[in-house]
Amino acid sequence: MTSFSVGLLGHGTVGAAFAALLAERADEIEEQVGMRPEVSGVLTRSRGDFRDILERSDLIVELMGGVDPTRDYVLEALGAGKHVVTANKQLLSQHGEEIFAAAREAGVQLRFEAAVAGVVPVIRVIHETLAGAHIDRVHGIVNGTTNFILSEMARTGASYDDALRQAQELGYAEADPTEDVTGKDAAAKMAILARLAFGADVRLDQVPHEGIEHLTAGDIAYAKELGLSLKLIGSAERIGDGISVRVYPAFLYGEHPLASVNGAFNAVTIESPAITEITLSGPGAGGSQTASAVLGDLISAMIPPPSLFPPARDVPLVSDVESSFYLHTEVADEPGVLAAIAEVLGRHGVSVKSLVQHGQGDEARLVMVVHPVLGSVFDKAVSELEALDAVRSRPRVIAVIEEHFD
Amino acid sequence: MTSFSVGLLGHGTVGAAFAALLAERADEIEEQVGMRPEVSGVLTRSRGDFRDILERSDLIVELMGGVDPTRDYVLEALGAGKHVVTANKQLLSQHGEEIFAAAREAGVQLRFEAAVAGVVPVIRVIHETLAGAHIDRVHGIVNGTTNFILSEMARTGASYDDALRQAQELGYAEADPTEDVTGKDAAAKMAILARLAFGADVRLDQVPHEGIEHLTAGDIAYAKELGLSLKLIGSAERIGDGISVRVYPAFLYGEHPLASVNGAFNAVTIESPAITEITLSGPGAGGSQTASAVLGDLISAMIPPPSLFPPARDVPLVSDVESSFYLHTEVADEPGVLAAIAEVLGRHGVSVKSLVQHGQGDEARLVMVVHPVLGSVFDKAVSELEALDAVRSRPRVIAVIEEHFD
Repeated sequence: MTSFSVGLLGHGTVGAAFAALLAERADEIEEQVGMRPEVSGVLTRSRGDFRDILERSDLIVELMGGVDPTRDYVLEALGAGKHVVTANKQLLSQHGEEIFAAAREAGVQLRFEAAVAGVVPVIRVIHETLAGAHIDRVHGIVNGTTNFILSEMARTGASYDDALRQAQELGYAEADPTEDVTGKDAAAKMAILARLAFGADVRLDQVPHEGIEHLTAGDIAYAKELGLSLKLIGSAERIGDGISVRVYPAFLYGEHPLASVNGAFNAVTIESPAITEITLSGPGAGGSQTASAVLGDLISAMIPPPSLFPPARDVPLVSDVESSFYLHTEVADEPGVLAAIAEVLGRHGVSVKSLVQHGQGDEARLVMVVHPVLGSVFDKAVSELEALDAVRSRPRVIAVIEEHFD
Repeated sequence: MTSFSVGLLGHGTVGAAFAALLAERADEIEEQVGMRPEVSGVLTRSRGDFRDILERSDLIVELMGGVDPTRDYVLEALGAGKHVVTANKQLLSQHGEEIFAAAREAGVQLRFEAAVAGVVPVIRVIHETLAGAHIDRVHGIVNGTTNFILSEMARTGASYDDALRQAQELGYAEADPTEDVTGKDAAAKMAILARLAFGADVRLDQVPHEGIEHLTAGDIAYAKELGLSLKLIGSAERIGDGISVRVYPAFLYGEHPLASVNGAFNAVTIESPAITEITLSGPGAGGSQTASAVLGDLISAMIPPPSLFPPARDVPLVSDVESSFYLHTEVADEPGVLAAIAEVLGRHGVSVKSLVQHGQGDEARLVMVVHPVLGSVFDKAVSELEALDAVRSRPRVIAVIEEHFD
């Protein structure tokens, strides 16, 4: 067995989640890549020796955050010819050129998907999928804390202060929320995205940012009347021969792909003439989400492609699956019909979630949505319904996909 | 100058768009990768010699479609140690294992982002970003033709036949729409996604598919009452130790991330316990979109990473940009106020898009959205407004982002 040694810097929420995820997925990764990733050492503020870990590692995962001493660590690792995966937006938005240059000189991989929008793959998509595209604009919601606060203000009419307090209680905002609510966190991410999309050296201190602290419930209420929703937008776009990079609260029309992104989610839209636009969305933060992004980067660094597809595994194909269903029946307009139908459904364990009755006489219809049930079971129930005298034609059945997180 | 030779098989809509895009972006790609991509030959049904082109190429781009003779071409190219980029969903969903095995044996790259959902980067994200993730489900809207038809039926109340006719007139559906409307096209794409997400050998003929031909305007109207929208869904999910892969029309609740994807767009949601979910959306077809996906794959195949970041370019940072704005003013409740405000705005070239008046007496408010204007110009107009006697407090200004495609 060949192993691939990973030195881990930092063991906070993300670091611990990464170490756990790596252990959990090591077998699968070995099968896929032909090498088994193993943690060669962990450095925290209180334990571990950096040089010792570096020497024993093929790749360094940097999850300490901040600029000091991580800048030195990352530069030293790259200089020693080790690949680096990092989630450090402060470091890249302030010292990106120095670090990119060190990686180029060493000819090693530097990956940082987790530095922007968590597991939402905006770095990889801009840098790889759209490597050949002329990008006009990248804009999005890149801070989950502020999006949660604004979503709550819109949903409940709460004031900024109340929504912030709620975000803090639920763990979506820190005790000191300054970096998030002033837009500074988003500005660091936009500096990194602008560097990737336009090849321009943009540093955090060059990105003007306005936050959400001054926004009122009234702004949101008025805006709703105008069909708008309020988001903290990070934007990087070409203007003539230059670019504009900034963070500012903005209203979006309802049809805009970012308008419906609510809660702690992040989303980024990338515009280019050849592709119109791509939108990527998902959870922007959280230990296991960020750890997943780091793991994806780690695996990419382990396989300098060819992009290999291991032989297929033997997996049974299942055809009878659970689903919620829409059921439309034309029924006789007479007493007892609903009871007869409900009896059939109940006997098969089919439970009704919502129901609409329509029309009278020959036009009477019963339209309902049922809770998830095995397809074969529902088919049997529907066959029995069809046989009822009160059901006048073949019932119409269409699957219903439930909301997420239910 | 080092060049990188690309043999192009097929010169239809996508092939021609790809050749044009490659020529347009060659300088940028050379700067980025250090090699200049050049077309070494073009094979069509009527001209060119495959063996000759193959010999002179580092990489083959296959955009002919179909299984015969493309299967032989692709296998021969891989066997000759050439990288292959293809957009061919028929080939991969019917002969995927044979082709993956050939690429593995040769140790060359095989990339096919454009085979599923056009430039929406679902292949790369599943195969690379989520390489270490345990994926539970991949489901989405992977056929733009049917999504356009269903969107039209929902928007206008049209029948299936009328909506299909309109799709044909606008070029979203072919003269013979069978592959699309029966769900077969989507089934081929889901077979490929299931292979990637679960490592299972799933072939097109194993994917049950139901289309949209039998759906009625009535289904959609009833569903609207229940808060549902109708989509043709491709789904690949784990069920116990097996997997289920299928294509079927389904209703989605309004909060579902796929519910708001309208028109010819595609979108795919990937679910995994560690990440919750990621949703990717964008145009699913079209010559230049598909060509962009092919170009991204080509560049990835040209750079067996390290994932290098070339030195930054010198790009001016622009701070004064055009935007639409929301303007909220507390005004005196007396005649002539609106005229005074409109005069100031008009003199600065600021044009009002929509306007709401609220309250009376001390509570009088004017809330408006203005058409795009340079920030500095709008600031000047707002300063003048603030100086008006009739304006009782500092106006509130928030940027407004317009809908796309405006």
